[in-house]
Amino acid sequence: MPKISNKGKQMPESPIRKLVPYSEIAKKKGHKVYHLNIGQPDIKTPEVAMNAIKNVDIKVLEYSHSAGFESYRTKLSQYYINHGLPIDVADIIITTGGSEALLFAMGSTMDTDDEIIIPEPFYANYNGFSTASGVKVVPVISTIETGFALPPIADFEKLISPKTKAILICNPGNPTGYLYSKEEMMQLAELVKKHDLFLIADEVYREFTYDGDIHYSVMNIPGIEENAIMIDSVSKRYSMCGARIGCIVSKNKEVMATAMKFAQARLSPPTFAQIASEAALETPQSYFDEVITEYRDRRDTLIAELNKIEGVKVANPKGAFYCIAQLPIDNADKFAQWLLESYDLNGETVMVAPAAGFYSTPGVGLNEVRIAYVLKKEDLIRSVEILKEAISAYNSK
Amino acid sequence: MPKISNKGKQMPESPIRKLVPYSEIAKKKGHKVYHLNIGQPDIKTPEVAMNAIKNVDIKVLEYSHSAGFESYRTKLSQYYINHGLPIDVADIIITTGGSEALLFAMGSTMDTDDEIIIPEPFYANYNGFSTASGVKVVPVISTIETGFALPPIADFEKLISPKTKAILICNPGNPTGYLYSKEEMMQLAELVKKHDLFLIADEVYREFTYDGDIHYSVMNIPGIEENAIMIDSVSKRYSMCGARIGCIVSKNKEVMATAMKFAQARLSPPTFAQIASEAALETPQSYFDEVITEYRDRRDTLIAELNKIEGVKVANPKGAFYCIAQLPIDNADKFAQWLLESYDLNGETVMVAPAAGFYSTPGVGLNEVRIAYVLKKEDLIRSVEILKEAISAYNSK
Ligand SMILES: Cc1ncc(COP(=O)(O)O)c(C=O)c1O
Ligand SMILES: Cc1ncc(COP(=O)(O)O)c(C=O)c1O
Repeated sequence: MPKISNKGKQMPESPIRKLVPYSEIAKKKGHKVYHLNIGQPDIKTPEVAMNAIKNVDIKVLEYSHSAGFESYRTKLSQYYINHGLPIDVADIIITTGGSEALLFAMGSTMDTDDEIIIPEPFYANYNGFSTASGVKVVPVISTIETGFALPPIADFEKLISPKTKAILICNPGNPTGYLYSKEEMMQLAELVKKHDLFLIADEVYREFTYDGDIHYSVMNIPGIEENAIMIDSVSKRYSMCGARIGCIVSKNKEVMATAMKFAQARLSPPTFAQIASEAALETPQSYFDEVITEYRDRRDTLIAELNKIEGVKVANPKGAFYCIAQLPIDNADKFAQWLLESYDLNGETVMVAPAAGFYSTPGVGLNEVRIAYVLKKEDLIRSVEILKEAISAYNSK
Repeated sequence: MPKISNKGKQMPESPIRKLVPYSEIAKKKGHKVYHLNIGQPDIKTPEVAMNAIKNVDIKVLEYSHSAGFESYRTKLSQYYINHGLPIDVADIIITTGGSEALLFAMGSTMDTDDEIIIPEPFYANYNGFSTASGVKVVPVISTIETGFALPPIADFEKLISPKTKAILICNPGNPTGYLYSKEEMMQLAELVKKHDLFLIADEVYREFTYDGDIHYSVMNIPGIEENAIMIDSVSKRYSMCGARIGCIVSKNKEVMATAMKFAQARLSPPTFAQIASEAALETPQSYFDEVITEYRDRRDTLIAELNKIEGVKVANPKGAFYCIAQLPIDNADKFAQWLLESYDLNGETVMVAPAAGFYSTPGVGLNEVRIAYVLKKEDLIRSVEILKEAISAYNSK
C-alpha cells in the first residue's frame, strides 16, 4: 500500500476540528450550542453584490485572466487609493481568497526549510500554508499581559537566522484583536529593511477597528516597497466568505512576476465571485457604518460581560472580531470538550476555540480560549452567562 | 532588497505566455488571429447551471464545508455511479478546479524531492504544480509514431527510484488527445501495485471521446483502490472553466484524510460555483450528444485538413480536444512567433502552441505544435489553410 507524504502527516488539523465530534454529542442531546468558536460573520452580504450575481448574463463561463478581471483590478486599485493606500493595478493579483494569496506569498518568497517569523498566537491556518509550502514557522511570543502588542524587536532579532526570509503579521489580529500602532509598524519596517526580509501583512480585517484608531497598512510605510506584501480578502469586509476572493498586493515587481507564475498554473480565480466582489466595491458607506457599530457594540458587551467573571482575564480587542480570554480553568481543551459533552445550563451550552491551537510553542496558552463575537448581543450575553456557570461547575467537579 | 525564492525562480511560465507579446503585435497590425492555441471551449454553458446562479437567494454568503456542499457531493457521487464509477460521497473532496485537486494530490502523496513519473508530452501546468510542491517530474517519453500510446512499462520501470511516489497520467490526454485502452490501464495498475506507487489520473476530459471508445477510468480498476486518485473538473464537461470547481477522488482513506487537511487550511471551495456545478448535474444528455457531435466533426475536419499539408504528421486524437502536429519546419517556437509577428494571409494569421513546452525533456518536440479544436469548423478549415500557406512562406524565406 502506497504511503502518504510526511508533509501530509505534518499538515495540522484545524484546532476547532477536534471538537466537532463533541459538538455532535451536544446536538444529539438536543442542546442549543452558542458558537463562540467560529469566524463566520452573521452579517448580511451587501445587496449590490448579490444582485450582480442574479443579473449575470454569461453564455460561456470562461477562465478569467489569471490575475483576475482587469475591470475588477482597476476598480480595486481605485478603492485602495480612496482609502489612502497607494496601490496600482499592476500591484494586484486577484486570488481565491486571502488563503491562496498567503500560499502565493510564501511560495514566491520562501524555499523548503526557510523560516518565517510569526508573532503568536496567530491564525492557525498559517501553519497549514507553511507546511504545504515546506516552510518552517518560527513563533515569537506575544502575551495577554500586553494585550498582544508587538513583541520587542529584540525578540525578533534573536530568532533571525540565515534561513529567515519573512515576517508575517496579522493586523488587526485573529485571534488577538490587536491593532498594531504606526510606531510598531515602523519598528517592523526598520527590522525587515535591516535584515532584507519580506514583511507579509495579513490585513483581511482592516476595516474592523473600533476605537477611532487608524489602521496603518504595510502599504503605507515609505521605504519598504520592496519588502512589503499585503494580503487582503473580501471574506470579512463584505461578509462574503463563500465567494473565495482575495488578493496579493506588492510593489516588488519580482514578487509579483513570481506570484503571477503561481497564478497562471492554477489558471484563474472564480468568475462569479469576481463579479460579486467587483459589485461589492459599490457598497454604500452606511453599510460599513452599521456593521462597525454592530461589532463595536458586540465587543463592548462581550468584554464587559467577560470581565464580570471572577478570574477571567481578557485583552480588549481593538479590531477584527475575536478576543483571547484566559479562563480560571486547568486546560481549555478539556474544558471546551466538557462544555459540549457533559455540560448544559437549561439545555444550552457554548462552543469555544481552545487557544493552544493558535500558538506554535507547545504548552503555551493552555488556559486560554478564543472567543469570536459574531453573534447577536443577546446571544453573547447569554453565552457568557453560560460560560460563567460552566466555569464554576467545571471547577467544582 | 529581499530575494524571491528559488522555487519561485523555477516556477515555469506557461508555454503560451511567451507568445503574448507577439500576439499583441498581430493585434496592433489589425490582423485577425485564429486561436488554435487555447483550451477554452467556445461551447455554451448549460442553461440549467446559469439559471441556478440567477436564482441564488443567499443572505449571508458563508464558507461552505471544506469538502464542498454535502448536497453537491451526494449528487456527484450518484452521477459517477450512474456513469459506471463506484464513487461514494466519502471518496470526494470538492476543490477549486481540477488544478487545486492536482495540488492536493501531490501534497498528500509527495515530499520535497520525491519523484513523479509523467508520460510526456503532458499538460504544462503539471510542471507548475510539481515545482510549487517541491516535487521532481520524471518524464517518460511517448511519441507521435505510436499516436502517443502508453510508453512500454519497461520504460517506466527504468525510471522508478526509491524517490518515486506516483505516476500521473492524463486520460484522455491534453495535449495528445490519446485515450488509454483498458489494457494500458491494467498494465499501469500492475506497475503501481508492484512498486507501491500512487496512480493519479487526470480525467477532466473523460466525456470527450469520439470513436465509440469507452473511457476506462482509474476508478474502474479493481485491486488498486489504495493506489488510485482521480482528478476531475466541471471546466470542460460543462464548459464552465470560470467556475473553478473540480474534485479529488480516492478510496484511500489516508489520502482523503490528508487531502482534507489541505482543504481545511484554505477553508472552502467557491460557493456560487458549487451551486452552478450542482445544478449542472441536471444537464440533459442531449447537450452532451450535441457537444460530442460538434467536437467529433471538428476533429475530423481538422485532421483531414492537416493531413492534406505536405510534410505534416498528426496523431489522430481519440479524445479531449487537442492534437499534436509535427510540422515541416525547423523550430515551432520561432515559427509560432513568426506567424504572429511577421505573417498574414489577407490580414489573417493563426496562433499555435509550440509543443516543446509540453515536454520536460529538453530538445524534444521542437517541430511539433499543439492545436486545439475549440473553433467552429469553418474557422478550423480557414486556420489550416493559413497554416499551410504559412509553412511554405516560412520555409522559402
Ligand atoms: C487572519 C485571517 N487571514 C486569512 C483568512 C482567510 O480568509 P479567506 O481565504 O476567506 O480570504 C482568514 C479567515 O478566517 C483569517 O482569519
Ligand atoms: C489536463 C488538464 N488537467 C487539468 C486542468 C485544470 O482545469 P481546471 O482547474 O479548470 O479544472 C486542465 C485545464 O486546461 C487540463 O487541460
